[in-house]
Amino acid sequence: MACRGACCCGPVNEDNARFIMLLLLIILYLMCGAAVFSALEHPKEKQAKEKWAQRFELFSQKYNLNKSDLEKFLRHYEEANMAGIRVDTLRPRWDFTGAFYFVGTVVSTIARVSTRPAVYVIDGKIFLIFYGLIGCAATILFFNLFLERIITVLAFVLKSCHEVQRRRKGVLPHDSRQDARLNREDSLAGWKPSVYCVMLILCVAAIIISCCASAMYSSIEGWGYLDSLYFCFVAFSTIGFGDMVSSQRASYENQTIYRIVNFFFILMGVCCIYSLFNVISIVIKQVLNWLLKKLEIPCRH
Amino acid sequence: MACRGACCCGPVNEDNARFIMLLLLIILYLMCGAAVFSALEHPKEKQAKEKWAQRFELFSQKYNLNKSDLEKFLRHYEEANMAGIRVDTLRPRWDFTGAFYFVGTVVSTIARVSTRPAVYVIDGKIFLIFYGLIGCAATILFFNLFLERIITVLAFVLKSCHEVQRRRKGVLPHDSRQDARLNREDSLAGWKPSVYCVMLILCVAAIIISCCASAMYSSIEGWGYLDSLYFCFVAFSTIGFGDMVSSQRASYENQTIYRIVNFFFILMGVCCIYSLFNVISIVIKQVLNWLLKKLEIPCRH
Ligand SMILES: [K+]
Ligand SMILES: [K+]
Repeated sequence: MACRGACCCGPVNEDNARFIMLLLLIILYLMCGAAVFSALEHPKEKQAKEKWAQRFELFSQKYNLNKSDLEKFLRHYEEANMAGIRVDTLRPRWDFTGAFYFVGTVVSTIARVSTRPAVYVIDGKIFLIFYGLIGCAATILFFNLFLERIITVLAFVLKSCHEVQRRRKGVLPHDSRQDARLNREDSLAGWKPSVYCVMLILCVAAIIISCCASAMYSSIEGWGYLDSLYFCFVAFSTIGFGDMVSSQRASYENQTIYRIVNFFFILMGVCCIYSLFNVISIVIKQVLNWLLKKLEIPCRH
Repeated sequence: MACRGACCCGPVNEDNARFIMLLLLIILYLMCGAAVFSALEHPKEKQAKEKWAQRFELFSQKYNLNKSDLEKFLRHYEEANMAGIRVDTLRPRWDFTGAFYFVGTVVSTIARVSTRPAVYVIDGKIFLIFYGLIGCAATILFFNLFLERIITVLAFVLKSCHEVQRRRKGVLPHDSRQDARLNREDSLAGWKPSVYCVMLILCVAAIIISCCASAMYSSIEGWGYLDSLYFCFVAFSTIGFGDMVSSQRASYENQTIYRIVNFFFILMGVCCIYSLFNVISIVIKQVLNWLLKKLEIPCRH
């Protein structure tokens, strides 16, 4: 498969060219992204810095505090933060439910969504390494099987639609032998939907799930709708920042229901977005192949 | 492929059985993990809580502070933390280098490794959603192509070894026609290494990279070696907690070199661990298939 290129110009065969091209494009993409984010966030950062300096100054003046003492106190607070303690600390984080949430975020590699304090005990750290290794692999398999299931369902739907159409057009579904053969031999094979079809459907599914989840978050957590959408994306894509964290308050109405619904939203969301990433990556690969063809690698002539 | 099962017992065909079984096993796995982590971390959490309560008490007594005022001050500090400001704040986080690091962690879905403050501006949030969608997909493709490249290299090595052996055994490499055909037709096909071989090699590579990176971190960041290993795993697996963060100090010797080496370690590590996850997931799938065979799904008889 990679032979033709390899024969005429050594290590730069087509596959390698695609790989290197992707690497370069990603670096370019990162640079552009860095420029945009730097432009967007830098002013805000300055502002926040000034505001904090002011507040620090005011507080230390008001109570006539020793500044280095106050700083030390804040460092202690940071330390406590690391262990998951806040001023408004709410519920124990390492009870079974908390730990369950924690391992869920580990295995899905979302991690910081629940802002669990990361592991403190050294045994816990060692355990986490081995635990995560199997867990993450199992989760990847789960996502892959999920995508496969989705594709099968789509194939089934496509086939059913086609059959319904055929029946409507008056072609009898009973032309026995051929149909039986079809059913046996390639029941769903040949009905695999195209990449674009899968992408479209996953996109729609992801948007629907995100919108529903956002509606829930914005009403229960009291976030803005856009903020909730951002939270959904960050959680579902397993990026998982810690700036917004769901179900952190001490008490919600119908807490158990909220937690379960939250869990299912995140599960469905992660599955959809993971599958979407995979499908988009196939499309990107096609674009790369097309680009390579257009560029006509010099070693080909 | 899924036909035989589907014909005799509806929706519970082999593929679906595998999927559901995996889901149940993952839930069981999560429960076990939750139990272990809860047991390990719960005492430590209590301890940290008491320590912090004591410190808070002491500080407020020492300066005769109004407690609710101090709490308000700490809440302000948390807010500043969110914007990436610490007592020992060091370098701007949203300059170009910082933003580059940020988008790198977004696209790789590591996220919290660099403890960038998450995005504050609402435009930034919207941009992040679309930016991440393409970026994450491109990165997944990159990882997949990386695994493909690794397998090709292994196939090449296996083939070369075999040829060397053949030559040693006295089989002349010049039995022209057959060799030429081999070279053309299946150059590397048929030399694909087994899953276990790839897993072993990726495992060894991951361990070597982690050990080297840990040696660097423990010397430069001043972490313990085990802590560094834990950091490596958390970063490379894209779990990415915020409890340990590399290159956060104001100045290191040879800062630029450190950053570049750091970047390459993380890139190589993520590639290896991602590939390892994928390969382990294949092994898990084989185990599931074996289990399914053992269980002899009732609908098969
Ligand atoms: K991740
Ligand atoms: K993550």
